[in-house]
Amino acid sequence: MATTDTTMQGGGGYDRHAGVQRLSAEFALPLLRRAAQEAALPRDARAVVLADYGSATGANSVTAVAVAIEALRARTPAPILCFHEDQPKNDFRTLLETIASGPQSYLREHEGVFACAIGKSFYEPVLPPGFVDVGWSAAAAHWLSPAPAPIGVLLAAPTPGLAAGTSLWEQARRDWRRFVELRQTELRPGGRMVVVVATVDDDGICGGEHAYDFLQAAVARLVAEGDLSVAERAGMFIPLFFLPRADLESPFSKGLRLLDHVRVVASDPLWSAFERSGDTDAFATGFTGWLRAHTEPCLFGALAQRTEEERRRLADRVYGEVASAVRDHPEVVHCPWRMAALLFGKSN
Amino acid sequence: MATTDTTMQGGGGYDRHAGVQRLSAEFALPLLRRAAQEAALPRDARAVVLADYGSATGANSVTAVAVAIEALRARTPAPILCFHEDQPKNDFRTLLETIASGPQSYLREHEGVFACAIGKSFYEPVLPPGFVDVGWSAAAAHWLSPAPAPIGVLLAAPTPGLAAGTSLWEQARRDWRRFVELRQTELRPGGRMVVVVATVDDDGICGGEHAYDFLQAAVARLVAEGDLSVAERAGMFIPLFFLPRADLESPFSKGLRLLDHVRVVASDPLWSAFERSGDTDAFATGFTGWLRAHTEPCLFGALAQRTEEERRRLADRVYGEVASAVRDHPEVVHCPWRMAALLFGKSN
Repeated sequence: MATTDTTMQGGGGYDRHAGVQRLSAEFALPLLRRAAQEAALPRDARAVVLADYGSATGANSVTAVAVAIEALRARTPAPILCFHEDQPKNDFRTLLETIASGPQSYLREHEGVFACAIGKSFYEPVLPPGFVDVGWSAAAAHWLSPAPAPIGVLLAAPTPGLAAGTSLWEQARRDWRRFVELRQTELRPGGRMVVVVATVDDDGICGGEHAYDFLQAAVARLVAEGDLSVAERAGMFIPLFFLPRADLESPFSKGLRLLDHVRVVASDPLWSAFERSGDTDAFATGFTGWLRAHTEPCLFGALAQRTEEERRRLADRVYGEVASAVRDHPEVVHCPWRMAALLFGKSN
Repeated sequence: MATTDTTMQGGGGYDRHAGVQRLSAEFALPLLRRAAQEAALPRDARAVVLADYGSATGANSVTAVAVAIEALRARTPAPILCFHEDQPKNDFRTLLETIASGPQSYLREHEGVFACAIGKSFYEPVLPPGFVDVGWSAAAAHWLSPAPAPIGVLLAAPTPGLAAGTSLWEQARRDWRRFVELRQTELRPGGRMVVVVATVDDDGICGGEHAYDFLQAAVARLVAEGDLSVAERAGMFIPLFFLPRADLESPFSKGLRLLDHVRVVASDPLWSAFERSGDTDAFATGFTGWLRAHTEPCLFGALAQRTEEERRRLADRVYGEVASAVRDHPEVVHCPWRMAALLFGKSN
């Protein structure tokens, strides 16, 4: 059964365009610092373990992990071992090079810190039980677990048209519960974790309702013009889902206590830059780069019958049309994303 | 300062052609089993830690690691965490996919086993002190630490022409001592490790004296024909060095005891197949594939001023000439490698 590939773009492409994800998670760094300050530390001499779930190629992860390392280093001289997790198809060479020698490399900044990568979906156990002292996951757990394809819709994200109780919403609830339960198992008693996801507010607004409109239209045009078959189109799927407050808070209980839940309207850094510069071309390029970096693998990777060359050609056309549409109507893709950060702790 | 890239070929190329390395390390698997049977196990509930140093893209590693896992599983139901280490430029996606879902995947075969990758040279600390219960390294520690380029010779391997006391021999001794000291630090007291390297026998014979002759000749021809500059040629370097018994045994003492040192003449699997089949083309293809998989990155990656396309074209020509020479004189590259496996243990 074909499943959707939710790996991010490799070769540095994701990192070059993931400023939106980084800035929309920045509000949660104080929570991560608190997690590192409050986590129970191992009493034996073994290393303190940090785990970063959904690291992609790492540019965003290193900044966050450095915050946790600083807070831990202030408490203990013990070695710190950082695990960066993503799916097996992730570009781990770029990830490990970013960690080892990128401009933000925490390995160069800190002594006694070690890093490694795990290639496995975070909807499975990825580390031994009771192993993790401090966990972090940013802009990752709103990606659904692999969904059977073809699924018939391009985008799972809640939109005004998506009613409560749909099967995708149910899957998102199940996935979130599973994600939290797995991390609970992996946390050490006394451990702390922070998860940042996009969310919808009490009115069901995620802030990026129209972020994918031009993309949907461009893909539809390929079908209308006969360059993409209806069957191929049915297999193309962006499995994003943004849960409301109540769903996000539901998996917590006495064994895993929700200690804080901060919710913000993130500023859209691309839009802010556009407001300052008025440069429509730069905005269209930036927005399309961001969009392509997180959607090209899942959308065009699904075209299993096509050569890589054909997939790239189709993608070039689609994202080219998106860029052109953004140039004409930049206001449509202004995205003040609703973001949620949850800090939770495993009981001793 | 430019340094030689000793990363193995990515994209599965190394694995397809690394049967020689796998079979020449097979004699050491009983030592690895013994290491896993004898290593002191952690008394607390934490995971047993296996470390594989110089894993390349993993096809050879998974077979060996599975042997250690089986021996450990017979002793304990504790989680087992396997670290696979290689340089930052290694193809970690292929490595992690091989581990997660390759035909020999130990993750599919065993419960409670977890895997991750480290992107750092094994001539640096790669894991916290006292962290590793069982270590393994096969056909890796005979690669020297990065040497400054240009160094002026194509191959560091001891040849009849290389006198004792040369600076490369000195570097090999220093590198080996550093490798062993770093692993001693990383081993837990009571931990065990097995290292397999190519060696020279008491007559100074490594068995592969002529393995690189056709390669040297083909590169020299590029220079003679003006397609490679003398300066470029001077930066091309295969930093392999095979130490004799005394050098290999010199770093051990009471704190790190050498428990066994097995030395064999490995059969050459490519040559054996050739003897059975008489198929010169298949032999030339197999030999050249093996040669290219472990030498192309270091030789042609050094041509920093060339485009990737130019590097590939030059490499195609060089390895094409090697294949042709092997077809004419297959007997020259029959390689009965002298191999050494050392089992050592850190004192409690």
